[in-house]
Amino acid sequence: MRYSREELIRFRHCDPAGIVFYPRYLEIVNDTVEDWFEHMGFAFKTMQQRFGAGVPTVNLNIRFASPCRQGDRLQLSLVCNRIGDSSIVLSIRSAQADNPVFEAEVVLCFTSIGERVEKLSIPAEIRHQIQQYLDETIAATA
Amino acid sequence: MRYSREELIRFRHCDPAGIVFYPRYLEIVNDTVEDWFEHMGFAFKTMQQRFGAGVPTVNLNIRFASPCRQGDRLQLSLVCNRIGDSSIVLSIRSAQADNPVFEAEVVLCFTSIGERVEKLSIPAEIRHQIQQYLDETIAATA
Amino acid sequence: MRYSREELIRFRHCDPAGIVFYPRYLEIVNDTVEDWFEHMGFAFKTMQQRFGAGVPTVNLNIRFASPCRQGDRLQLSLVCNRIGDSSIVLSIRSAQADNPVFEAEVVLCFTSIGERVEKLSIPAEIRHQIQQYLDETIAATA
Amino acid sequence: MRYSREELIRFRHCDPAGIVFYPRYLEIVNDTVEDWFEHMGFAFKTMQQRFGAGVPTVNLNIRFASPCRQGDRLQLSLVCNRIGDSSIVLSIRSAQADNPVFEAEVVLCFTSIGERVEKLSIPAEIRHQIQQYLDETIAATA
Repeated sequence: MRYSREELIRFRHCDPAGIVFYPRYLEIVNDTVEDWFEHMGFAFKTMQQRFGAGVPTVNLNIRFASPCRQGDRLQLSLVCNRIGDSSIVLSIRSAQADNPVFEAEVVLCFTSIGERVEKLSIPAEIRHQIQQYLDETIAATA
Repeated sequence: MRYSREELIRFRHCDPAGIVFYPRYLEIVNDTVEDWFEHMGFAFKTMQQRFGAGVPTVNLNIRFASPCRQGDRLQLSLVCNRIGDSSIVLSIRSAQADNPVFEAEVVLCFTSIGERVEKLSIPAEIRHQIQQYLDETIAATA
Repeated sequence: MRYSREELIRFRHCDPAGIVFYPRYLEIVNDTVEDWFEHMGFAFKTMQQRFGAGVPTVNLNIRFASPCRQGDRLQLSLVCNRIGDSSIVLSIRSAQADNPVFEAEVVLCFTSIGERVEKLSIPAEIRHQIQQYLDETIAATA
Repeated sequence: MRYSREELIRFRHCDPAGIVFYPRYLEIVNDTVEDWFEHMGFAFKTMQQRFGAGVPTVNLNIRFASPCRQGDRLQLSLVCNRIGDSSIVLSIRSAQADNPVFEAEVVLCFTSIGERVEKLSIPAEIRHQIQQYLDETIAATA
């Protein structure tokens, strides 16, 4: 299963060259992860209150293929590549009018929040939801 | 040779967990690249006016080691790992009080600006400056 | 007539106190103006291409009434208070679950874009659209 | 007494028109207030830990006089116009090469932090420091 959403490219995303300033793409990546968790029933607020946990990004690999401009509609698509004891590897792709815009691999880590930041095991009910987004080709051969 | 600078972590960098929101680190990475080019005598404005060119980021790989909070002073250090015909691979490391914060590998591509975005060869005078920042261990064995 | 839209408050909007960092509200105000112009048939891109013009904000007065947090849904409502030869005075109000969040008065100025930034008269077709959003109580007594 | 600082206008501040996107000026205003409090010995972190308090912005009035571009050096100057039991009215002016860029009046309110946000009286030691920045012409006639 894939999680998909769309993002309208706005004036505030764009730089003096008229194209999206790349840190803004990372805000869009973060929004996508946030919406996906909420869609699965685990809003960031819920994870914080019920599990005392958050999912900070610990590793990010992103390749930018073509630029976007104000008014473009970015199609985003998320699958899970791998799920470990406390980490989750996501693949997030985006395209605009069938042109790939960026491909990102994002590693999140389930951690405690507060003064001490420590790895936690992903709770079973969250793991169960995430597994539905495991990339099918990978899942088939695992 | 290394290019170094410091960044004060501010309220605006931090998220509800009280730590730097990671897209803000990419703004800091971008500022570091911007300052480095200016330090070499090629401010972004100069590159635009003299060469009709910019250096968009085409690939980014970043690993976050430990969180930063408001008031921390982030030490940044940049070297060049590789320089191709139009691309530049930079390694940017950051630490706070001797703790590594992030390690980034950033690939920039020298490109024309305007409606058409095309690769350009890096002009000799810019290449000459950049070569002084080639990582010494790599440079020694090349 | 009013122009209305909704904005979901996200993690990226919020500060270490867990509430929206106020410059983010101004990004939301800007998005609202951008959407309103697009809704009227004059996307920023269109204004730039057809009229060589933009609508920079020249004055802003904003009062913050109550804080918002991640997951809140902000209701935004825009009317035009006044339209001059080149300036437009907008009133933008926002509420969350019937609590007022902010009230802004924004003055935009229709200006040329490029190296020289000069006031322009608002073209008749844009003026015609904007007049439909003139605040009724003001319009009635004008 | 005035509090002054300088801000370098960067690529990330600028929009597709090549000028500073105005919500970025509000980030600069916030940084200025943050630095001023730290300069007086009351960093935001200190106020939070010692007084359980913060100084959210409750009202903002800003007039933009002329645009700034990448590479400009913005001179900022802050005085206090008025200090009440829990509120502080600041005047922040900025100029670039003797051209006024913006004039802001910012009202801060000393408040408790946490789930309940309530007004607090400004502690005597903070009030004492702030009074040194009271605008002299106003102070002289008060």
